[in-house]
Amino acid sequence: MDTRTGLPLVGMVGGGQLARMTHQAAISLGQSLRILATVPDDGAALVAADVHIGHPTDLDALRAFAKGCDVVTFDHEHVPSEHIEALVADGVVVAPSAAALRYAQDKRAMRERLGALGVPIPRWAPGATAADFGDEAGWPIVAKAVRGGYDGRGVWVVDRADPLPDTELIVEERVPLRRELSALVARSPFGQVAAYPVVETVQRDGICVEVLAPAPGLDPERAVEAQRLAIRLATELGVVGLLAVELFETDAGLLVNELAMRPHNSGHWTIEGARTSQFEQHLRAVLDYPMGDTGLTAPAVAMANVLGGELGGMSIDERLHHLFATDPGVKVHFYGKQVRPGRKIAHVTALGDDMAAVRDRARRAARWLREGR
Amino acid sequence: MDTRTGLPLVGMVGGGQLARMTHQAAISLGQSLRILATVPDDGAALVAADVHIGHPTDLDALRAFAKGCDVVTFDHEHVPSEHIEALVADGVVVAPSAAALRYAQDKRAMRERLGALGVPIPRWAPGATAADFGDEAGWPIVAKAVRGGYDGRGVWVVDRADPLPDTELIVEERVPLRRELSALVARSPFGQVAAYPVVETVQRDGICVEVLAPAPGLDPERAVEAQRLAIRLATELGVVGLLAVELFETDAGLLVNELAMRPHNSGHWTIEGARTSQFEQHLRAVLDYPMGDTGLTAPAVAMANVLGGELGGMSIDERLHHLFATDPGVKVHFYGKQVRPGRKIAHVTALGDDMAAVRDRARRAARWLREGR
Repeated sequence: MDTRTGLPLVGMVGGGQLARMTHQAAISLGQSLRILATVPDDGAALVAADVHIGHPTDLDALRAFAKGCDVVTFDHEHVPSEHIEALVADGVVVAPSAAALRYAQDKRAMRERLGALGVPIPRWAPGATAADFGDEAGWPIVAKAVRGGYDGRGVWVVDRADPLPDTELIVEERVPLRRELSALVARSPFGQVAAYPVVETVQRDGICVEVLAPAPGLDPERAVEAQRLAIRLATELGVVGLLAVELFETDAGLLVNELAMRPHNSGHWTIEGARTSQFEQHLRAVLDYPMGDTGLTAPAVAMANVLGGELGGMSIDERLHHLFATDPGVKVHFYGKQVRPGRKIAHVTALGDDMAAVRDRARRAARWLREGR
Repeated sequence: MDTRTGLPLVGMVGGGQLARMTHQAAISLGQSLRILATVPDDGAALVAADVHIGHPTDLDALRAFAKGCDVVTFDHEHVPSEHIEALVADGVVVAPSAAALRYAQDKRAMRERLGALGVPIPRWAPGATAADFGDEAGWPIVAKAVRGGYDGRGVWVVDRADPLPDTELIVEERVPLRRELSALVARSPFGQVAAYPVVETVQRDGICVEVLAPAPGLDPERAVEAQRLAIRLATELGVVGLLAVELFETDAGLLVNELAMRPHNSGHWTIEGARTSQFEQHLRAVLDYPMGDTGLTAPAVAMANVLGGELGGMSIDERLHHLFATDPGVKVHFYGKQVRPGRKIAHVTALGDDMAAVRDRARRAARWLREGR
């Protein structure tokens, strides 16, 4: 507890944009998020009062950081399980637990567990049997690093003649998908689970570029099926906090692609688009507060990621001036990062009555910030 | 400019809840608000990364604070004009200017100026002529400290036999008012002015306890009249940033009661209730960005202040648990303050389709946090 306010002290390991936006939400709840950043220029470290500098794989740094926290949580999956167990042995409350987080850290463990639960997933095999698997499932196949991949890294499309990357892998069939969806839920230690409307996520080169909420034209029964699946997984895996279930929608139904147990890019739209943002919801969940209203604030919400583009010409500040002049209703969220090509530096959100219109506004805004034209 | 991000550095003098919530808004714009707090436990200092400690009347502290800021602005009216002029002479950009801010600092100067502009205000006189004024306008009258009053302090109802407070005063007639309204606008150096919907403010003992947006049952022509008046005042007085015009609604029309040139309690509802919060709008205005959309996000929005109540019994954290269990849609904003009876420690906001219902929700939430029952 923060003795100055009588309200809880939450620690978040990781100083990226997820921690940055969680700190924003924490302020409303009377809190000041404690952040373990790797360097002082991390996006969250630039805006928070209570910043520790240390590496998420350094147990001493984690211990010093965790001291006095009511609960420790994460903005990424890079804390080793054994360190989480050591913190718990020290008496620290950690959410999600190492046992749950394992299924967001280890793609093989996730697929084995989901298979055992009878949850639909793409056909897969351990990397060691890739050749046989490809002959059976059909080439090319998809190889994924068991650990550490994100934003298209750690994923390769592999044909029969291609060498396999030299890391621990699983291989999967290439699923003929209609589109990708995401089902976001939050679960508290008490066991309450709150589900957000199911969204469509649009990927380019393995990176999420747009999120449409609610997923346009999604069959209501399939939406409920996706929410039920996410609620079931949160409960079966013992997740505390957010769980994002990334899904493939195929002609035959839904398949689970990936899991994340933290605020997720597919939930950024909730800051303005839902009555409770995913960042506030994550804090409520890990603190065992009752969950907040997940209802939409507008019939159509579109979020677009802003990837760093070409430098030179207009500064990012000038681009922002022009964007605000063009669209007074678009909301921007900068992450406090230096612009580098391809790096997620911000996102934009547009709300309204018509999905085509808000999607167009979000796209234009993101392109403007990226390209200055 | 913040060289780490290429985005502006705004300094705000004062570390209270207005700076705290402005910092929250600054994060989205890619900024980290620099704050001049009086003590490290000020609400904004608890949550911001770039905090200077110093008194707003200490010119050396102000100069050190202002160094490197693209613009310096305020969360209160306590910086002496001559210090603002000294900063400007140093080359610091300050918004609003000392010339404009004077009308929010000095009630006599404000009334003289508004009178000269032909803006309707209550009948008033300098404190030295109180006896004659009371005989003419009718006893009791209202005495107001020319400087430094807020939240009911510096305001007295005075009858013929009462001694006058020993400070520089103006005296006013007691206006037979229907209710109080507030018209909030923001103006940029470029001269763009954006107006929020006019709201009703409900006072108790001189403290704002509720704000209803939009003001229920307000004649649309009168609403436009109030907005036009606020736009005119922002322009005539050369305000840069927010201007809150507190109004009396009487049978005969509108009268201007007070002015504030900063985020204002009557605009807290905009965080969830308007497409652009007053805190983001103030930053946009002082940075000369184009103004954001001031439209409502729901047909009815009610904000209630949470005043510190009796301690003991349930902790504030337990009260929050229960509140969230009762109303998953209510939004809370804590200010990082120790609970003290009568002190504003938080506000709550409820949104929906029906004003009576959202008002009831906001009231119940505020009472629950105050009284724990």
